[in-house]
Parts: sequence; C-alpha cells; structure tokens
Amino acid sequence: MNTFGKKFTMTTFGESHGVALGCIVDGVPAGLTIDETFIQSELDRRKPGKSNLETKRKEGDKVSILSGVFEGKSTGTPIAMVIYNEDQKSKDYDSVKDLFRPGHADFTYWNKYGIRDYRGGGRSSARETAARVAAGAIAKLMLGAIGINIQSGIKAIGEIEGKTNDFEYAKSSPIHALDKNYEDKQIKAVTLARDEHDSIGGSVLTIATGVPIGLGQPMYYKLDGALAEAMMGINAAKAVEIGEGAKSATLRGSQNNDPISSQGFESNKAGGILGGMSNGDAIIVTTHFKPTPSIFQEQHTITKDGTETICSLKGRHDPCVAIRGSIVCEAMMALVLADMVLLNMGSKMEHIEKIYR
Amino acid sequence: MNTFGKKFTMTTFGESHGVALGCIVDGVPAGLTIDETFIQSELDRRKPGKSNLETKRKEGDKVSILSGVFEGKSTGTPIAMVIYNEDQKSKDYDSVKDLFRPGHADFTYWNKYGIRDYRGGGRSSARETAARVAAGAIAKLMLGAIGINIQSGIKAIGEIEGKTNDFEYAKSSPIHALDKNYEDKQIKAVTLARDEHDSIGGSVLTIATGVPIGLGQPMYYKLDGALAEAMMGINAAKAVEIGEGAKSATLRGSQNNDPISSQGFESNKAGGILGGMSNGDAIIVTTHFKPTPSIFQEQHTITKDGTETICSLKGRHDPCVAIRGSIVCEAMMALVLADMVLLNMGSKMEHIEKIYR
Amino acid sequence: MNTFGKKFTMTTFGESHGVALGCIVDGVPAGLTIDETFIQSELDRRKPGKSNLETKRKEGDKVSILSGVFEGKSTGTPIAMVIYNEDQKSKDYDSVKDLFRPGHADFTYWNKYGIRDYRGGGRSSARETAARVAAGAIAKLMLGAIGINIQSGIKAIGEIEGKTNDFEYAKSSPIHALDKNYEDKQIKAVTLARDEHDSIGGSVLTIATGVPIGLGQPMYYKLDGALAEAMMGINAAKAVEIGEGAKSATLRGSQNNDPISSQGFESNKAGGILGGMSNGDAIIVTTHFKPTPSIFQEQHTITKDGTETICSLKGRHDPCVAIRGSIVCEAMMALVLADMVLLNMGSKMEHIEKIYR
Amino acid sequence: MNTFGKKFTMTTFGESHGVALGCIVDGVPAGLTIDETFIQSELDRRKPGKSNLETKRKEGDKVSILSGVFEGKSTGTPIAMVIYNEDQKSKDYDSVKDLFRPGHADFTYWNKYGIRDYRGGGRSSARETAARVAAGAIAKLMLGAIGINIQSGIKAIGEIEGKTNDFEYAKSSPIHALDKNYEDKQIKAVTLARDEHDSIGGSVLTIATGVPIGLGQPMYYKLDGALAEAMMGINAAKAVEIGEGAKSATLRGSQNNDPISSQGFESNKAGGILGGMSNGDAIIVTTHFKPTPSIFQEQHTITKDGTETICSLKGRHDPCVAIRGSIVCEAMMALVLADMVLLNMGSKMEHIEKIYR
Repeated sequence: MNTFGKKFTMTTFGESHGVALGCIVDGVPAGLTIDETFIQSELDRRKPGKSNLETKRKEGDKVSILSGVFEGKSTGTPIAMVIYNEDQKSKDYDSVKDLFRPGHADFTYWNKYGIRDYRGGGRSSARETAARVAAGAIAKLMLGAIGINIQSGIKAIGEIEGKTNDFEYAKSSPIHALDKNYEDKQIKAVTLARDEHDSIGGSVLTIATGVPIGLGQPMYYKLDGALAEAMMGINAAKAVEIGEGAKSATLRGSQNNDPISSQGFESNKAGGILGGMSNGDAIIVTTHFKPTPSIFQEQHTITKDGTETICSLKGRHDPCVAIRGSIVCEAMMALVLADMVLLNMGSKMEHIEKIYR
Repeated sequence: MNTFGKKFTMTTFGESHGVALGCIVDGVPAGLTIDETFIQSELDRRKPGKSNLETKRKEGDKVSILSGVFEGKSTGTPIAMVIYNEDQKSKDYDSVKDLFRPGHADFTYWNKYGIRDYRGGGRSSARETAARVAAGAIAKLMLGAIGINIQSGIKAIGEIEGKTNDFEYAKSSPIHALDKNYEDKQIKAVTLARDEHDSIGGSVLTIATGVPIGLGQPMYYKLDGALAEAMMGINAAKAVEIGEGAKSATLRGSQNNDPISSQGFESNKAGGILGGMSNGDAIIVTTHFKPTPSIFQEQHTITKDGTETICSLKGRHDPCVAIRGSIVCEAMMALVLADMVLLNMGSKMEHIEKIYR
Repeated sequence: MNTFGKKFTMTTFGESHGVALGCIVDGVPAGLTIDETFIQSELDRRKPGKSNLETKRKEGDKVSILSGVFEGKSTGTPIAMVIYNEDQKSKDYDSVKDLFRPGHADFTYWNKYGIRDYRGGGRSSARETAARVAAGAIAKLMLGAIGINIQSGIKAIGEIEGKTNDFEYAKSSPIHALDKNYEDKQIKAVTLARDEHDSIGGSVLTIATGVPIGLGQPMYYKLDGALAEAMMGINAAKAVEIGEGAKSATLRGSQNNDPISSQGFESNKAGGILGGMSNGDAIIVTTHFKPTPSIFQEQHTITKDGTETICSLKGRHDPCVAIRGSIVCEAMMALVLADMVLLNMGSKMEHIEKIYR
Repeated sequence: MNTFGKKFTMTTFGESHGVALGCIVDGVPAGLTIDETFIQSELDRRKPGKSNLETKRKEGDKVSILSGVFEGKSTGTPIAMVIYNEDQKSKDYDSVKDLFRPGHADFTYWNKYGIRDYRGGGRSSARETAARVAAGAIAKLMLGAIGINIQSGIKAIGEIEGKTNDFEYAKSSPIHALDKNYEDKQIKAVTLARDEHDSIGGSVLTIATGVPIGLGQPMYYKLDGALAEAMMGINAAKAVEIGEGAKSATLRGSQNNDPISSQGFESNKAGGILGGMSNGDAIIVTTHFKPTPSIFQEQHTITKDGTETICSLKGRHDPCVAIRGSIVCEAMMALVLADMVLLNMGSKMEHIEKIYR
C-alpha cells in the first residue's frame, strides 16, 4: 500500500532517520526528456531550512536517478530515485521513544504494527513527502509536454485568509502567499505561533490549467475522488474541497450551476470537474492542513505501557506545515493527472484506431 | 474503474433508465449470515418517493441476490445483486438529449466517450447509488459482527446548520436531521427551494463507532484518504472533512492536538484518525453536497454541436440530494471500513501466527 | 479476486446450481458495436449437450445484456451480462454433499471457507466458464476492430496427437479437431473412456494472428506470463506452453532462436513472444487439460469428518473437458489481448501526443 | 507493471548496465526478523561466476537495505533494497546497439518503446532477477516462520533428464542437479554446448512443503494460475507444468485422480493444487527454459532500419540459463506463496473473529 496511482505509479520507501528514502516511478512513457535539474529544483522548493519559518533540519535532498533513463530520455522502464539521509539527529528522539506524541501517528503505528521506528516519526514523518515531490516532478514533465500546468499557494494561515490568488506572486513569497496584501499578516501569524512554542494551521490552493476535457474515470476513480484521496493523504491534511467546495452546500442550484455558452463555461464553481471528469476549465482544489502536531509545550500523554506522562518535545519542526505542504499538493495533483492522462487513453474506439491502425 | 475497494470490493453496473443496475460484492468472508431483509431495508431507506421532499420517481428497488449465498450464509464467492428498473419514463429526456444540462455530467461524458445514454443521466445518475447501498449493507453486516456501527444524518441544509448531533433522532426524521431544533427550518429551506423551481445544498455527518485501532493502510491507502475518495466520489459531493476538518487549519497546535490520558483521548478533533489509521475513537466525516443541478428554471447552455440554447428541464428530481445522500455516505463508509478490516489482517506476524499456527 | 485483467476487465459471479451466473465487463472503449448475436453464438459454441461427447445437462445459456450498451454501441460504462440457470438437478448431488470427490475442488473449498455449495461444484464448476466466454466475446469484438483474430482447436486427446493444425477444419469438427486425419481416433478415445465410465485428458492449441508488435507489459505482466495465468486458471488445466514450449528446453540456442530477415522472423519457435511482448508473429499457446475428475467408477475418499468412504458419482459430465475447454481458451486469450491492447497505449510519448495534441 | 503480487508485493527497478538495481518489498508483516546474511546468501546462490558453467561477469551483488527494518525487525513499512552495478563492460555491446539479437527482447523493446538501453539487454537482462531473489529471500523468511519450505533443482538439461529428485543433493551440485546419476551427463551437455559456441535449454523442478490447505484465490488469482504467471515471467521460460502437467492430458481420470484416505491424499498427481487452492500436499511446479539466446555463432538478423545483417555476439553469457534460473524459480514461488498467505486471511469469518475479538 505504498504505491500511488494505477498506471502512472509511484512506489515510495524510507523513514525520516533511516538510511535513505526514495521512489520508483512506473508507467512513464518512453521518450520523455528527463530534466534532472528540474527534479532537483522541485526538491529544493520543498526542502526545509530555506527560511526561519521552517525546521532547521538541513537536508541536501540530493536526488540520484538509478534506472529508467538512458541518454537523457525515459525508456519506459521504472525510474528509481534515491535520496540519502544526512542530518540525522536521532538522539533528539530518545526522550519520546516510549511515549506517544499527541497529534502524531505514534499511537496508531504502535498499535497496528507492535513496533515503531520512533526516530523523527519514522515512516510517518513529513520527510517522506520528498519522495512524492521527486515523483511529482516527473509527472509534471510529462504533463508539461501536453500543456498541463500546475501551481499552488497559501490561501490562509490560521484565520488570516487572502482574497486574491496570484500564483506568480506565490512563487517568490517565502510562505507561498497567494495574496501579497495578506502576506505580512500571515508571516506574523506563523512567527507568533513559533515564538509561543506553538504551531498553526493553514490552507493551500492548488490549480491545474490546460487540462483536456474528459480526464477522470467514473465510477470509482473519479478525478475529484482521486484528488481528494491524494490531498487528504498528505500528512496533516484534514479537509479537501473541489471548486466552491463546502460553500456549495450553502447555495441554491441556480447559484451554483455553471452556465455554458459557446465560449465555454460562464463560471467555474465546479472547480473544473463534472461527473468526476475534467470539463476543460481549471481544476481547483483547496487542502486544509492542521497545525504541526509537534509543539514545544507540555502535553498530556501516555507511555507504551499506558502510564500517564507529560510530553515535552525538542527537535526541529516547521511551525506551519501548510507552507511546505503546498509543494506536496502540486506533486500529488501532478501524479493524479498523469495517471488520468494515461488511463483515459482507450476510453473510445477512436483512440484505439489512432494508435493501432 | 467501476470497482471500489481492494479486498472487500464492490463492482457496479447500470444506468438510470437501462434494464437493471446492480453489483458484485467480492471478498466477503465465508460464514457471514446474509440478512436479505436488512439489505432491502437499507435500499428502502435510500429509495426515492418516501416524502414530497424527494423525486417522485417510484422505484421498488427490489433487490435479488443471484450468487454467493448458500443456506443463508456467504460462501466466500462473489455475491451478485440485481435491481431491475421499473419506472422508466425515458420520454422525459427527449428534450435534453442534444444539449448539456448545466452542473451535470452530460458535457464530460459526451467529450470523453463520444456517446452518451442521455436518459436520466445514464450511468452518472444518482440512481447508481442504489448499488452502493446494497453492497454497503453487506459491509455493514460484516462490520456489525465485530461491533462496528455506522450512522449518519443531516448537519446542514443550505445555511441552516444544526448544533447537536443526535443520530438516533435522525433515523426517524424525514430529512435525517441531526438536530431536531433545526429540523423544521431545514425542511422549510428545502420546500422553499423546490417551490421556487430551485434546489439547495446540504452537509452530511457520518460516524463509525467501535472501530478497532490501526485500520487504514499507510502510505497511499490511508483511512482518511480512502474515506475522502469514497465520499467525494458520491454524486454532487464537493468537499470532505475529517474531524474538525477545515476548522483545524485555523487553529493552533495547542488547540488542535488531542491529549491522551490513561482513559484514552481527551478530545476527538482528529475525527478518530492519526497518521491515516484509526485511533479507536469515533471516525467522523463531514461531506458537503452541492445543490441538485437539475432545476426547473431556464439556464444557458449549448447543444452537442456548440450552438447556444436554453435548458428547460422537466422530470422528477430531489430538491436536496444531501438528504438521500446521507444513506449513501453510510454505505461508502461501511465499504471503506470493511476493506480496511480485511487489509489490516497480516499487518504483524502475530496475526499470521494466529491464523496459521 | 473474481476480476480478471487490469484495464479491460471481467468480474464474474455465479454458481453451477445457483440462480444465475454472469459478468461485468469493464474498460470497453465507447463506440464499439456490440453484436449480441455474436455473443450468443460464442456461448452456443461452449454450451453442453451439442453432441453425445458432452454432458447432457441442457443449458440454454441465453445471455441478457443489462447495461453499458445504448443504441447498439458500447458507451464506456460497464457491460453487465446475466445467464439464468435452468436445468438445475440439485438432487443429483445429495449423495456427495458430505464427501470430497477426488480430483475436485470440494476438499479445498471446504477447508478454505468452512462452507461449500456442493451442488454441481458450486463456484468451481466449469459452468462458470460461460461467463468467461460471454466476456471474451466482447473482447473479440474489440480485437476484431483492429484485425486481431483468435482461433483454437484440439491438438491431442489422450495420447492421440494430431500432426497438422487446421483451424478452419476445427470449427466444424464436433471435437474441434485440428487434424482431420486424427479426428476419428480422437473421437474414439473419448467414446471409449466414456463407455468405460472413465474420462480422458486433452490438449488445446490457441493462436492469435494480426497482433501488433509490442503488446505485453514487462516486467510482471508480460504477455506470456499473463497468458500462462489465463490458461492455467481454466478448470482442469495443468500445463501451459508458449511456442515450442517444453521442447525448447531440449534444444540448443542455434536450433531455438528465430533468425530475422527483412521479411520478418524466419521461424516462430518463440510463439510470437519475445521478452514478454508480442513480436508480430502469431501468438501460439498450448494448454493441457487433465481428464474430467468426475468419473463413474468407485473411488476412495473421505467425508467432511474424515471418515473413509467410497465416492460413486452420478450426474452428467463431459468425458473430456478439453473439447469445450478450447472455446474457453479462446475467450481467455481474447481477454488477455484486449487488456494488453489498452495497457500498451501510453507506452511512448508518441501515443500521448497522438491522443492529446 | 513492475510490481509483482497483490498484498505481499515486490516492485523492482534497474537495468543490466545502469547505476543500480533493486526492489521495494511491501506488505511484509511487522515483527519479522530480517536476516540480512540470509538475503545475501540467496543472492550469492544466484550470482554469476561461481563456476565455469556460468557467465564470467563478476557481480558482487552486495545488497543494502535502505528502509523498513528497525533493530533487526521489519516495521510494516516498505523494505527497499539496492544492489549497485559494478562490472559494467558496456563497450561489449557497441556492436549490437543497432541490431536485434535473435531470441532476445531487443526487437520488441525497440518497437514498443522507440528507444532501448542496449547495454546488456537493459531491463530485459536476466540480471534483473537479482532483485527478485532479494525480495524472494524476505518472502522465504516469512514463510519459514510458519513452516513453509521451498526447494528447487535441475530436472533436465537438454534431453538429459534425471529420474530422481534429491533436493538436498541439488544444493551442493554446481548445476543444482536433482539426480546425481545424471549430473555428469548434464554437465557435459552444458560444456559441449558452450565449447561449440552454442547454448542449451533445461528444466527446473520447484517444490514447496508445509503449505497450509486453502492458499490460492479463486477465481482469477488461483494458486496454479499465479505460479504459472510467476514462472513464465522469468526470462527464457517457455512452459510451466503443475504436478503431472502435460502428462495429465494423456491420462484417464481413473489414472489421474488422487484418491483420498484418512491419512491424506494417496498420490500427488495434482501437484498439491485442487480448484486453484493448495490441498496440503507438496506444491510441485516444473518450469522449462529455452537455451540462452546469446550464442557465439553467426545469426541472421536486421538492424533498426530493417537492413539484413549478421549478428556476431561477444560478451559473457551462461550457456544454460536454467541452472541459475532454479534460484529465481524458488524466489518466485516464495513471492507467490507469501502473497497467498496474506490474501487468504479473511477468507472466513472465523479469521476475522480471531484477529478482532
């Protein structure tokens, strides 16, 4: 269950403080130019330590391609990538190895498996998302070849919500803010939380443009369903909305339907998806992240043998996981769309005839 | 892609106005008592025409089991169920067969497949959910055998949101209202929308209790991820939240973490899921449904050849799909949990030894 | 685990003496003309009772399409087909309900599931193959549209092996004999076995012509691997060979390699498959079937509680399952190839560009 | 399509002359002692250069575990293993980079993907099987914990077929010969083929003992079907037989059925499988390998642009791939059985109750 996707797939491995983490990307069509510099640059966007709003854990996140690429192009065979771990301060975790950190997966891993790699959360660490970003970069390369573009940014930090969505601006913002008028307030909210030994939640907007009509597989691998799983499966995500999302539930049909003209849809409340398939408009997804569960305040918890104790964390943690989460959202959307691009082929006989006749 | 689940699976078929619809449920452990009366009663809860808040289309929704049950018990072989369509007024759809109804899947089906069964939305009709409810009923029977119970109800209709969650009350409410103090207002909101030839959105709360710790498969078939896909994949769903959901994104870590005592978690903001696995508390999911796209007002649209026209619908439609949607939410949660119950077996060597030694 | 294939899939249900059996065929491209007469004719080729060399159980095997076809064409939605059982003489099985018939699946079903539908073998009956043939017929229709043709015939009955492979002749032979010079001897071998209250094994040759180069997915869904599973999974199959098969193991490389000229391969010892992918030559598969385990002689066996007893069968059984098995071999090969046709799409960027640009 | 198995899965990557090859093994139950020495010893059994009957390519085949093991035990997270390539003489392949070697996958890879890594066959090289053996070693560790044991040996080389099956003897034989009386003749057959710049085929017998009754999933993931795919998917395999295999097709039912006594089956012609499930007897599989396609004689072939030419190979190749293939057969059988052990859990309610109550 460490494989994501059905035809364009990513299988990942690795723990926060183990030897290495990485992935095997399978289903990549042969003949795609694999730009290693781009893959590394995507990892660099995700890696921690770029500003004082992020954990100070320093990871070079240097990726190596082990297979599947020959003379700069994909060969159709699986592309394996590995990132060796460097800055492993396992000692930091000695104090927590016998207790369950509130809000973390310690409790559930322990109960499910009867064993856990307690160093930095092991497999449940957000560090695992580096593998997703590497795989997502390859998906982006494939999607780029047919004009699909994916972008993201921070919509809200805590209760500070931006009003406009400037994805270009977000690219240079240290917190990926979509609205420059709210950026300062959002940064302050993060700083304040951190200074108070606390953390804070945030919301990410992710969009895809240039998406052909008809991507998404009814009935049980709909585009919106797959995006919901992709986003909800990111560490700390607690809610996913498509288009108007939860707000749609408060509206009338006459307000929520997108009328159609000969120029296309007159609005995009649907978020680019109808009946589980892309309708040609921008795909719009909002992902809500809870605050980082690692906080530097005393919290009630229990040990593995059930004794009550106090959890006092040390270590290095992002005060707001949503910020770097936005890069992961892009990767997950790219993986979903790449899979849907492949799966859609063969939806009608016309496709079969184009390829085989 | 008409199969849901990985080990406890449901494969469905059928169009709104075709011959029949149904499903094959696979992976059901042998020896489960299959209570056909219960399956039928679940279908009866979902079927339309029970009140004047629902479409008047009358469907007996009489289910027949074709296989997989012998002398009242499951045999481990696939259980096929079929529901023949009865009240097919295909004529109602003649006027829409060449145009795309706003908010519907007509446009995307046509573009993806180059052909569509326009009668009642064909495969994209909410009628398909009858098959899900039948399969979900079998999942509920299996879950019941180990003490897992699933319930749902209406949290909000449009902007009318209840404050309390009384799942027992919801069972007898015609709109499955969770808060009897808001039920009248919610009914009025539906009635008013209908009388104004419009429709209205709504939100459904679904919970599971008695869930063992550790259900859910990291990394890419997490319990929350799978529930998100399950719920978002229901017709008209536009947002899914786990536990506090979107609200978590506005909180501090110190507010959002659930402390742990020797009695268990001191709160359940997580909605019963940590690290993608059940933590033993109630699983809590909120699903937001857009208003029924079928409204009886004139709407701008285009025909298959791109000409602008006016869409004027006739026919029979629920003014608020969320109401009957709640039954489907229960079915989908049951299917996810049944799958996770099976998949979790073998997570540790202790399981292997219990079965094979 | 009652689903076969990955993209072009068949999910089957049904027991020998249950209400009905059938299948859901998913992944069929939209716009394929669904010739119901052809599907029925394939079922008629498989159905028993056509000659006195087959069981006298009379099954109309009348198939009904329940979904997925609109105005004569596939719509891209799942095609469900059902065949109701008619000639159910369950009484015949009363004498065997508490014992395990040698060579049958009774013993393993009972041990795995703790329950079994003993009537006619239940799910393990060869009757289940009717569903495969129905699904295979749709696969054949799709393959036919791009020039792929599948044929089969009987190579050997017991030790009587034909020398030539005349697939046209096999079509009109009551035992699907490939070599008319051996047909009589083969018929006699069957008749003799039957008259001696015994049964006899046989071998089936199945070929596909017109197969494009490159079908088959390395590494673990190779064309030869998938065909091996498909054929070995047919009731009573005990060996599968590709091309020269087991004989290849006795040869030198200089004898076994197929040289290549500008006109193509100079021989076809490979059976049309290299590296798990079709090479453009005819795909050649031999499937060996054991003799029908149901024989009308006394056999040692035990009852469910372990007591030794004698098994004396009544009922109606083919003396040689290989004969009707040949029709099932065709269906399975068609299903594999249809799946591979779909899966191969997207193997190179050129495909992506053909569909999306 | 580089993933094998459904619950206990192996996903592999790597080319013959690329940077590295390896695998991710997923679904391993937590708490299994991972004996790295054993894994390495399995790789050492497979690695080339142990005798002058094998390619002289020297590969240390030194495996490193990158994840999924903590303090010597599996944690339930994916176990990644990597083997870096060392002895890469890519120059050897310059002469073949533009032509298709007869009997090899060059032709099909080129046609399917439009690009190929010609160095040593790239992905299609038997070198890929090192990853399978590493994964298979973990499967063996898990199976060993419940008493399942897998062994293999050479039954025949060319036409020299042994009469007895001494698996203990095979372990110390340089060609894994099962019958010491035929070992010398078999070795001579290999030596002669090699000295004549040719190669030779061979047949491998693989057995599993201690297998619980009921492993295997009807209908389309039967134990025999899965084993057939597993074995046929090994490089150069051309035929797979279960139990008596092809010989069964020549027998009468009265000869082929295994009678049952209170002591168990009185014979094992079925090869331990009935109805696609293990019956408690030894699982017996014969796999037939064609001769190594790489021979050092001139062969007719064509270049990528279709021109006729002569293929004259250099390099280092096993004269008989069946010999080292036997180790791969063990690995594949182990992977299939490990998967079936996990999948079988939940086949009856009794299992559910054992784990969850």
